Amino acid sequence: MSAAIDFYFDFSSPYSYLAAQEIDKLASAHGRSVEWRPMLLGALFKTTGGVPLVDVPLKGAYAIHDFKRSARYSGVPFRMPSAFPISTVNSARATLWVKAQTPARTADFVRAVFKAYFVDDRNINDVDQLAAIASEIGLDAEALRAAVADPAIKDALRVANEDAVAHGVCGAPFILVDNEPFWGNDRLPQLKRWLTEGGF
Amino acid sequence: MSAAIDFYFDFSSPYSYLAAQEIDKLASAHGRSVEWRPMLLGALFKTTGGVPLVDVPLKGAYAIHDFKRSARYSGVPFRMPSAFPISTVNSARATLWVKAQTPARTADFVRAVFKAYFVDDRNINDVDQLAAIASEIGLDAEALRAAVADPAIKDALRVANEDAVAHGVCGAPFILVDNEPFWGNDRLPQLKRWLTEGGF
Repeated sequence: MSAAIDFYFDFSSPYSYLAAQEIDKLASAHGRSVEWRPMLLGALFKTTGGVPLVDVPLKGAYAIHDFKRSARYSGVPFRMPSAFPISTVNSARATLWVKAQTPARTADFVRAVFKAYFVDDRNINDVDQLAAIASEIGLDAEALRAAVADPAIKDALRVANEDAVAHGVCGAPFILVDNEPFWGNDRLPQLKRWLTEGGF
Repeated sequence: MSAAIDFYFDFSSPYSYLAAQEIDKLASAHGRSVEWRPMLLGALFKTTGGVPLVDVPLKGAYAIHDFKRSARYSGVPFRMPSAFPISTVNSARATLWVKAQTPARTADFVRAVFKAYFVDDRNINDVDQLAAIASEIGLDAEALRAAVADPAIKDALRVANEDAVAHGVCGAPFILVDNEPFWGNDRLPQLKRWLTEGGF
């Protein structure tokens, strides 16, 4: 089996949500696994000087329109959350805990959290909600509560953010295939061709 | 024939160059013409607070890589210009003059200027170069020289920039189909489906 595909994402990124619905099917069709890499866009923005897209004049209004249309284009359910964007520090920490404890459940947890936010409008930074989501998919809710407050997990997220910057991650989703970078859900067609042809 | 497709672009935008290779084939396949709308990204940036992509930490390095790969993906020749980005005020003015004088030649002129910049590395803000490009495709070089200094053409470009902001144009290329906005060369697949299905 070839090296894993690195999938860098932020739970508050609609384009990450859309790409997360397809990335492991795409990977496994080419004999790859997915390394889910939660991180915080806010940490990147300290390097890039970026601000949330929806806060930019002109781009903000377009972006919300495009989130919804891109979801329809991909056939993925989507509802604009009532609070957007939000801090995703707890959902990112919780994901690192799932990866460490039950790695085979990581994709299930990631998609459950994305769905909670972008379909069911739940507050995915709230620890009660995260514990409930864990419980709904058969993970240990009490252990999750402990994990998001665990200094080792907090450290792991700091390291994950630094790792993202070190790898040139400049937005989300950001996908690395054998060091080849693809930024954005709209680069999945190029990624697919890259995997099929071994580059182009 | 249905309403024209509005194609807003800046000659210094590689993604505009790529989209310009496809937009009129796509339009005519759906009984549409293309309204070529040159404008200056710098004028938009006053509203959006934007800066050229290549000047943004992390994003800059990725962007140059992505320009080249996106060109290969589309099968379009591309060479990163030695000076980038540059002012495109004269090439935009020259285009407005072509549109006014010989509208049927607008697409030819636009593609000749894009090729001069993104394939042949010519300085497309230089009036001598623009006059030469006009001459190469059978347009009146001396009339072009006069046009780029004509106060009426200068005014027309100011109005074009204001029109872009008024229509919510937040980057380039930016395409309007019956008021439905598509930003970016990577939205051509959605645009194609929109034209085919009359929306989705």
